[in-house]
Amino acid sequence: MNHLLSIADLERADIERIVAQAERFAEVSDRDIKKVPALRGRMVLNLFYEASTRTRSSFELAAKRLSADVVNFAASGSSVEKGESLKDTVLTLSAHKPDAIVLRTPWAGAAELVSRWCAAAIVNAGDGKHEHPTQALLDVYTLRRRVGEIDGASIWIVGDVLHSRVARSNALLLGALGVEVRLCGPRTLMPREAQALGPTVKAFERFEAAVEGADVVMMLRIQTERLAGAMIASTREYARTFGLSARTLALAKPDAIVMHPGPINRGVEIDSELADGERSVILEQVTNGIAVRMAVLYLCAGHQPEHVISSTE
Amino acid sequence: MNHLLSIADLERADIERIVAQAERFAEVSDRDIKKVPALRGRMVLNLFYEASTRTRSSFELAAKRLSADVVNFAASGSSVEKGESLKDTVLTLSAHKPDAIVLRTPWAGAAELVSRWCAAAIVNAGDGKHEHPTQALLDVYTLRRRVGEIDGASIWIVGDVLHSRVARSNALLLGALGVEVRLCGPRTLMPREAQALGPTVKAFERFEAAVEGADVVMMLRIQTERLAGAMIASTREYARTFGLSARTLALAKPDAIVMHPGPINRGVEIDSELADGERSVILEQVTNGIAVRMAVLYLCAGHQPEHVISSTE
Amino acid sequence: MNHLLSIADLERADIERIVAQAERFAEVSDRDIKKVPALRGRMVLNLFYEASTRTRSSFELAAKRLSADVVNFAASGSSVEKGESLKDTVLTLSAHKPDAIVLRTPWAGAAELVSRWCAAAIVNAGDGKHEHPTQALLDVYTLRRRVGEIDGASIWIVGDVLHSRVARSNALLLGALGVEVRLCGPRTLMPREAQALGPTVKAFERFEAAVEGADVVMMLRIQTERLAGAMIASTREYARTFGLSARTLALAKPDAIVMHPGPINRGVEIDSELADGERSVILEQVTNGIAVRMAVLYLCAGHQPEHVISSTE
Repeated sequence: MNHLLSIADLERADIERIVAQAERFAEVSDRDIKKVPALRGRMVLNLFYEASTRTRSSFELAAKRLSADVVNFAASGSSVEKGESLKDTVLTLSAHKPDAIVLRTPWAGAAELVSRWCAAAIVNAGDGKHEHPTQALLDVYTLRRRVGEIDGASIWIVGDVLHSRVARSNALLLGALGVEVRLCGPRTLMPREAQALGPTVKAFERFEAAVEGADVVMMLRIQTERLAGAMIASTREYARTFGLSARTLALAKPDAIVMHPGPINRGVEIDSELADGERSVILEQVTNGIAVRMAVLYLCAGHQPEHVISSTE
Repeated sequence: MNHLLSIADLERADIERIVAQAERFAEVSDRDIKKVPALRGRMVLNLFYEASTRTRSSFELAAKRLSADVVNFAASGSSVEKGESLKDTVLTLSAHKPDAIVLRTPWAGAAELVSRWCAAAIVNAGDGKHEHPTQALLDVYTLRRRVGEIDGASIWIVGDVLHSRVARSNALLLGALGVEVRLCGPRTLMPREAQALGPTVKAFERFEAAVEGADVVMMLRIQTERLAGAMIASTREYARTFGLSARTLALAKPDAIVMHPGPINRGVEIDSELADGERSVILEQVTNGIAVRMAVLYLCAGHQPEHVISSTE
Repeated sequence: MNHLLSIADLERADIERIVAQAERFAEVSDRDIKKVPALRGRMVLNLFYEASTRTRSSFELAAKRLSADVVNFAASGSSVEKGESLKDTVLTLSAHKPDAIVLRTPWAGAAELVSRWCAAAIVNAGDGKHEHPTQALLDVYTLRRRVGEIDGASIWIVGDVLHSRVARSNALLLGALGVEVRLCGPRTLMPREAQALGPTVKAFERFEAAVEGADVVMMLRIQTERLAGAMIASTREYARTFGLSARTLALAKPDAIVMHPGPINRGVEIDSELADGERSVILEQVTNGIAVRMAVLYLCAGHQPEHVISSTE
């Protein structure tokens, strides 16, 4: 692997390799000495054009647990304020010879573009509404750990599917693994081409219709500040129609588990008790994110660097 | 020790253990190689909801001098901007399995709350107007180094006692050590229950009355931008009545020393010459802060992690 | 060396020592394990009062490649917001006993002042419109690598010379090395005393007059947001008169190289194709910046610390 740009790029074998590597790294975070020397002396740059507690820190910790050195760049407080373009920022940082650049931007396709401009391994940590591949990988890893075999399982992804890179990456990844994916959300927040994400992906307009027999319920974050009044009537109305409550969860399988990429809006897309309940794996997702990101960084940046620009096609 | 949440929690033996450990660590900062491997492979998270040069950097350096890995979170530039609650932020960060979380917030009692939510050792780096325990510990450590035995000494804490977590933690700690503590400030900035902080704590309204025979004068920072016009007439008036000058210092013992938690307002609560003078230990306080924070981090996070939630009662 | 405050302070021997040391460190960034233990256990503080992607990260990476620990301070998010003076900030940070402080400020002469206040090695990373010595050193290092002997070469520095610490440091350094320096820019952006920078420094008002026979063309960043309308008619007018294009570059020597300290304004001071062209060494400048800053940090902070305040006179 040279980069992790999108789920769409991955072969089944790549997916299995990442998950297997994550399994090997998982126990590192439980040790007293939470480090392995796998990337000692390597440099990982976190280049974040959007604020993010969980993703930035997850990558930073993952890199440090591999003994890499980490340098963080937030878009504010940098030349970006002076109007430097993404390309020039990347070319400059790339001239510092990092081994990997972890990139989050509001622009769909940015990770792929950046991978053409520099020799470092590029790891997409979210590019606009396009993809968030490590989130999908950690979700699959979490499912495997919790549910076991997921072939043939039925997963229900609910919320603002239209704007969600998490939904998109998960639909692609779960579809590739033969999982039945049911996308569901308000008409205004559903993409037209939902079905196009894979042969096992279906779109539903009513929550109750989607949920029957679901093994997993994955709730998406609703951007209340941005959507209320524009795309949804109100957060209260949204919570009533598309929020996960004990009543709606009862329609799924009795042992169905609850996932959410975080940060959660308690009382909007998910009831507080369910978020904290025993069927919730939300915090396991966070913990597993470290192992999966360690695996991705190791597989992308741990080999002998070749300083060759590798295309993603 | 599992946590350092407040001075009120500490037994005399805990205090002596921290101070003794700080003494052992003090010389590390004077070495060429300013590191010991005491926390190698351990992870310390700095979670700061308030800006702070000195406290954040002091903890960061302390952790690095113990060879720990450090990840910094400022409240801005994180999910906090998206409205995530303290609890969810802490649960998420906690799922990253840090060994210690150093927490500063504007909310009294936050450190204690957080300690119930996660397995990491919690170190309170200031919670609202409640406590700032490492500041009090470094002040006692500084006093012991400079004054020697402090049993029976008389310490004068002057300024905005009402809003000061430094005053509160110091009054509790010094009181527990048998020191006579004289709190003094404008009537509007004195707490009603000052005497309740300990049997050796007394409140004074006039600066000159408090100062007689003082061994130590600890000036508090006045928040000029917030208080002027509201709680005090003007900074000029404040400086005249409660600022430390050569004239007022002359009323204390001839060898009385001058302390301040910083950052100082020169010419407001303290005259510039006194801040820089030979009786000032202000910069020693800063230097000693590293040793004390190394001791606290080591004692809280250096043991075998048990990943058990420990209550503070 | 105790500090690097300004090019004006350096003897010829100092310059050669830095460049030679940079040459020894250059290959570290090409290794798999991009580290040497030269500053293991030493602490480098980056104290930045101005935003900067490239300079801050370059110093941070340089320090980490020397195995130093690095603590970053941005002016916002620190006590600076509370109105603490530069002096008190530096005295406080200095009490943390860093081995080196890398300082960027908007105030000319700040680095020199700070060096009088503390025992740490001070490295000037830009002080107002005064100096940016490591930029000039990396430019000379880049020239030596690319052009070889530069004695007698002719270098053309074009743009906002008046406000440019890069121009100033380069004119001083190149002048000291016997290079002919031609400063050129709009009348409103040229200093009156340009010639005073050295016996080989000349000022030109017309771009075409300056360029004839130039070996090197160094373009300066124009601060479009600040200058347009005030000091220059418009960025379009500026680009036409003082921007580097294929037409104007043709007036220089056929193998003349193009430099820029970055970040570049494509289409303003330099045409995009020239910035990315094979005669451009802009990204080499960035890469070489790491080696030069490693050399400077090593020479300033790598010796036995003496904790003595050393004057720069």
